[in-house]
Amino acid sequence: MLTEKFDNLVKQLRVLPGVGQKTAQRMALHLLNGRRGQGSALAQALDIAMHEIIECRQCHSFSDDDICPICVDPRRDDSVLCVVETAADVMAIEQAAGYRGRYFVLGGHLSPLDGINADDLNIDQLVNRVKTAPVDEIILATSTTVEGQTTAHFIAEAVRRHVGKVTRIAQGIPMGGELEYLDSMTLSQALQNRS
Amino acid sequence: MLTEKFDNLVKQLRVLPGVGQKTAQRMALHLLNGRRGQGSALAQALDIAMHEIIECRQCHSFSDDDICPICVDPRRDDSVLCVVETAADVMAIEQAAGYRGRYFVLGGHLSPLDGINADDLNIDQLVNRVKTAPVDEIILATSTTVEGQTTAHFIAEAVRRHVGKVTRIAQGIPMGGELEYLDSMTLSQALQNRS
Repeated sequence: MLTEKFDNLVKQLRVLPGVGQKTAQRMALHLLNGRRGQGSALAQALDIAMHEIIECRQCHSFSDDDICPICVDPRRDDSVLCVVETAADVMAIEQAAGYRGRYFVLGGHLSPLDGINADDLNIDQLVNRVKTAPVDEIILATSTTVEGQTTAHFIAEAVRRHVGKVTRIAQGIPMGGELEYLDSMTLSQALQNRS
Repeated sequence: MLTEKFDNLVKQLRVLPGVGQKTAQRMALHLLNGRRGQGSALAQALDIAMHEIIECRQCHSFSDDDICPICVDPRRDDSVLCVVETAADVMAIEQAAGYRGRYFVLGGHLSPLDGINADDLNIDQLVNRVKTAPVDEIILATSTTVEGQTTAHFIAEAVRRHVGKVTRIAQGIPMGGELEYLDSMTLSQALQNRS
């Protein structure tokens, strides 16, 4: 609308989730109006991240190096392995704090309808890992969607022979939740899982 | 939280307006998960825009070249000049369509409390422009805030000797507006400005 380079910036900004034409224009103008240094720093950080962030060889989360900081950290507990779908899940659990074991990222969940089968996830690598470096417990922390549940069952079967204890992250009423506003699926699950 | 390069990307993304920690994380993960080509294209567009978009020498809007596409366009009407506060205003008017004259960007509005005086805006350049290249009409399209109104009055005084007709963009009920929900300032202004 203004100039070719401006229009191209707006177009490229729209690749960001939740950013439409109007928001992209506002972002572009915001940076051009006296925040060009910050805009250049963002461009550089983006370029570095896109080219240099790789997959950790051990846990398949995102990493700057061959092995990620969590896998390298000697203070973490080698005997517990938390299996999650994506690197975003690792981040969520790390932010919640309290967990001091290791992670393993599957790279998604089983979803035959979308053509995602066991071969497309890092399930073989997971089985190999627990064979070569035994753990006491595997925590299955996949989503509680249908696909996440299926994936958890599938992995439980695959690793059961190699691991003593296979647990599933608890499914019940979220903290601060009021029973009367909760959906019936969660409620019946929570009653079933009472401890 | 994940790695140094990831954290830096999240930090830099937060410079965008309306983007907090959570949104920045979501954006970074969105790009890293299979949209790295688009992320690199965004980095490049940003870098080019921040370094190569300059101010049009004639209208002070954003431009790729010395003179912007609107100032260069021979089909536009040289006899009308629309004075706005920012390049964003040029874009808004262009998107509304219908206006075929030229623009002049002040670079803000008068605001003595914030230390923005006439010298900080392109007012001298505007007066010089209408002296050297006379126009039939100047449309004052600054905001209808207190600062915008003050700026409009100030410019009207400054250019009155050099321009035959100085008009102000209409102030009244917005299109599709229902009277009963309108604020009383706008309503009384609209009654006063009846035509």
